[in-house]
Amino acid sequence: MFIYNAWYIAAEPAELNDGRIVGRVLLGKRIALYRGDSGQLVAFEDACPHRKAPLSLGTVVGDGVRCAYHGAEFGADGRCIKVPGQKAVPPKAVVNTYPVIERHGYIWVWLGDNQAGADESSIPDGFWVSGEPSWIGGYGHMESIKADYRIINDNLFDITHAEFVHPESFGGQEVQFYRNARPGSEFVDRGMSFEIGANSIRFRVHAAALGDEGGPLWRSMLAQSHGEEEWDEPIDFRMEVIWWPPCYTSFHISVRPMGKPEAEPVEIYNLHAAVPETTRSSHYFYRSVRNYGDASMNAAFIDAASFVFNQDKPILEGQQEVLGERDLLQTDPISFSGDRLPLEGRRILERLLAAERVER
Amino acid sequence: MFIYNAWYIAAEPAELNDGRIVGRVLLGKRIALYRGDSGQLVAFEDACPHRKAPLSLGTVVGDGVRCAYHGAEFGADGRCIKVPGQKAVPPKAVVNTYPVIERHGYIWVWLGDNQAGADESSIPDGFWVSGEPSWIGGYGHMESIKADYRIINDNLFDITHAEFVHPESFGGQEVQFYRNARPGSEFVDRGMSFEIGANSIRFRVHAAALGDEGGPLWRSMLAQSHGEEEWDEPIDFRMEVIWWPPCYTSFHISVRPMGKPEAEPVEIYNLHAAVPETTRSSHYFYRSVRNYGDASMNAAFIDAASFVFNQDKPILEGQQEVLGERDLLQTDPISFSGDRLPLEGRRILERLLAAERVER
Amino acid sequence: MFIYNAWYIAAEPAELNDGRIVGRVLLGKRIALYRGDSGQLVAFEDACPHRKAPLSLGTVVGDGVRCAYHGAEFGADGRCIKVPGQKAVPPKAVVNTYPVIERHGYIWVWLGDNQAGADESSIPDGFWVSGEPSWIGGYGHMESIKADYRIINDNLFDITHAEFVHPESFGGQEVQFYRNARPGSEFVDRGMSFEIGANSIRFRVHAAALGDEGGPLWRSMLAQSHGEEEWDEPIDFRMEVIWWPPCYTSFHISVRPMGKPEAEPVEIYNLHAAVPETTRSSHYFYRSVRNYGDASMNAAFIDAASFVFNQDKPILEGQQEVLGERDLLQTDPISFSGDRLPLEGRRILERLLAAERVER
Repeated sequence: MFIYNAWYIAAEPAELNDGRIVGRVLLGKRIALYRGDSGQLVAFEDACPHRKAPLSLGTVVGDGVRCAYHGAEFGADGRCIKVPGQKAVPPKAVVNTYPVIERHGYIWVWLGDNQAGADESSIPDGFWVSGEPSWIGGYGHMESIKADYRIINDNLFDITHAEFVHPESFGGQEVQFYRNARPGSEFVDRGMSFEIGANSIRFRVHAAALGDEGGPLWRSMLAQSHGEEEWDEPIDFRMEVIWWPPCYTSFHISVRPMGKPEAEPVEIYNLHAAVPETTRSSHYFYRSVRNYGDASMNAAFIDAASFVFNQDKPILEGQQEVLGERDLLQTDPISFSGDRLPLEGRRILERLLAAERVER
Repeated sequence: MFIYNAWYIAAEPAELNDGRIVGRVLLGKRIALYRGDSGQLVAFEDACPHRKAPLSLGTVVGDGVRCAYHGAEFGADGRCIKVPGQKAVPPKAVVNTYPVIERHGYIWVWLGDNQAGADESSIPDGFWVSGEPSWIGGYGHMESIKADYRIINDNLFDITHAEFVHPESFGGQEVQFYRNARPGSEFVDRGMSFEIGANSIRFRVHAAALGDEGGPLWRSMLAQSHGEEEWDEPIDFRMEVIWWPPCYTSFHISVRPMGKPEAEPVEIYNLHAAVPETTRSSHYFYRSVRNYGDASMNAAFIDAASFVFNQDKPILEGQQEVLGERDLLQTDPISFSGDRLPLEGRRILERLLAAERVER
Repeated sequence: MFIYNAWYIAAEPAELNDGRIVGRVLLGKRIALYRGDSGQLVAFEDACPHRKAPLSLGTVVGDGVRCAYHGAEFGADGRCIKVPGQKAVPPKAVVNTYPVIERHGYIWVWLGDNQAGADESSIPDGFWVSGEPSWIGGYGHMESIKADYRIINDNLFDITHAEFVHPESFGGQEVQFYRNARPGSEFVDRGMSFEIGANSIRFRVHAAALGDEGGPLWRSMLAQSHGEEEWDEPIDFRMEVIWWPPCYTSFHISVRPMGKPEAEPVEIYNLHAAVPETTRSSHYFYRSVRNYGDASMNAAFIDAASFVFNQDKPILEGQQEVLGERDLLQTDPISFSGDRLPLEGRRILERLLAAERVER
């Protein structure tokens, strides 16, 4: 069920500070991640080839690692370079390594056999602002959620659930545009257009005049950015969402006062990534940045993100409990109009899975 | 190992108050139970046919349920009646429903395919007083106990364990009558008679004069009801027990001062039901009513019931740990004279199981 | 993977005080252990042949046990001698018993079918002082550690890990002697000799003059025994280690001031036993005695032992997590020079396992 030949977010960079080695299960594999003294990132299979002690218990030495158990040292390429007390180093003493890279404020690993594709170009791009110094936020959280990454994809990807699960924030009448989406690449007033690419799905929602019938968060953004308690005037609302397989969904929300196209938009970008841990659990990475306010607002945003996350979590974990070892699509589920794009996303995943099977 | 074509206690009515939906595993199936606005009881498979979110996370709307995830609404008959934002409702969007009924102060469900038998007449009757206003008590507890319902049946059903497990309450010499039981339908002084029916087992224990050699609880009942500290005089003791498959055991205890047949008896009725949750765990429902004292005594009775329950629990869970995945009868156990009726009860269960296999 | 025809430490004697019955899982079997009124030790299968209640929940009666559930009594030979309320005792009502013995301050059981070998002579001997009244200590701890006993054997048995895992105590340059060990039965200055027997492995490490390059604990022993803060002079260090299958490792450490062969040595004996609980967990028994100081030092020794134990534990449990259901040797591990003796130990285990398979 896992797609191996893909980049996966494995850690937040700060987790690797101060020479820490992170041990993490990704796609059912135990991985050790660290940053060498030169700054080089390394991802190892988290097991010493000697006696299988987890290398994540070890110590960074130069750009390599010294095993906590018998002190064997491995270079960043995984080759054993020192066995304490003996001159010969067994040539077979090699740890599996994985391509690893830092980009967009995350540590990414590639766990597949086909390392030909493991270049930066296949890391999804453009989905959130990381280099823009005037944008703030970037806080995030990483949680283990006991659900298959695919049902988390479905969640992120079908915004119609917001009306019922997130009525205080995202849930508004604009989800109706989602249900009536049409192919296209332009913003359409009171409508949604979508593009299904070979390796991504993108959609745009627009309302030139959105009032109380819209999601409360959109008006809150204008109120917050203008230092007001509430925002009662209609707004011009735009949302653009991109999903990349296997598990990346990015939202770009942009609002301005209605009828003022010249006004600076108030914007939020965020990323949701449900990286598979096991067949029934995922690591949930989240990050959000915005172009207004200052860092004193961050705590409130973190609280709000946590509130929303905890609205979804019991539903996602409940689905998984119902499903047990089955995938959702094996249960012959009924689909609604809001499932159109998530089902397209699952088709892309199926195609990628089938391609990996052929390669083998 | 489960008998599906039977009524099972699924909940206490108060659990469904205030529009709450109870999600509970019964016979390995996930069930959602609620009471509609009109008072109608409904039992659903606890999974939305759309994306398998547990319906127990949803909200009661009229007599139906609205799924917490995407707001699909289902009527009390399980048929989807509304999909938010779309006119068409997929005709296949139907939740499995189960017959459900309230009786004797419990909510009962029928999980079998053969719904022909799912009428009230097959709910065991007469085993405790529910409509008698002058009787009080009725408190109960519902606990999950990590043991197969059949070894809990054995426990309830073989009172000879009381001498060793419950010496402060039920354990007295009258258990000897149990070991020497004879077929019959009358109370026999210093003896026990039993009747094995097609679908029940009943036995009666009687002692016209029972002193200190009897279970301490019997004399306590007289002392309590007469407002005395102790009761030292011999008593006339009667106990009638009925067991119905799959898992219902009811006790009726009646005591009076010895030699005073005209005296109003002091009586307790109680019910023990070990409803299968999984193959290795059960929900334990218990209820007790009595014809004396007032509600101020209830707390003491609840404490006493809890004390007794916790005497049995480590033994029952210990048996299950020893048995693992095996049923007791697969281990070729040695039986004693006290096992006669529990073994008859298991024969009835076997017959019912075999009948279900034939039906399929 | 278990060797059944061997003596296993099952409990510390004090655990059986005051008529307590210890229920413990050993080699995947549930065992009940107790001491009868006459002092006789008994080891039963921890399940009543009647209804499989754990006998460890019962009560010692004479030299037998009364089951907690229905009061059946079993003699020390496992035969049922009483069923309450009935004259006949079913002749098949017999509990499996296991040979059990107290020796060297432990309770030992034999779980194998071949009870011919179950005599005291096959209990490993001579590995720690128990009867010497002037020696003190003898404290110990018993913990469950989630690791296969064989990887704990490997740990105890390959002292080269001390340099990395226990630098504050055992880790010193003398581990280098271990890597360069030669066959032999004498202490060799700045060297190590070893003997591989049919059923044991023994090695001796010696340094006539060991300074700061040695393990810090050796000098601490001299300082402690002489009532000094530190010991800066070089020492004469001797360590003798014996391993017996399946899981017993004993250390004898003896130090004196360098060049004073006439001086009374300062000595510690200890035993480490990782008795299999399941295929993935072990009971860790530990005991240590010394020939110096008084009981007021014991608390500090217990703290130190616990500190050392908790240095190994995450590594051992980490290895087991990596290994899952596999044995280490099934993973084709790379071996270092320090693995020589542990691998010999595993060969002895393999030979014993093969012999058991033939017997069956």
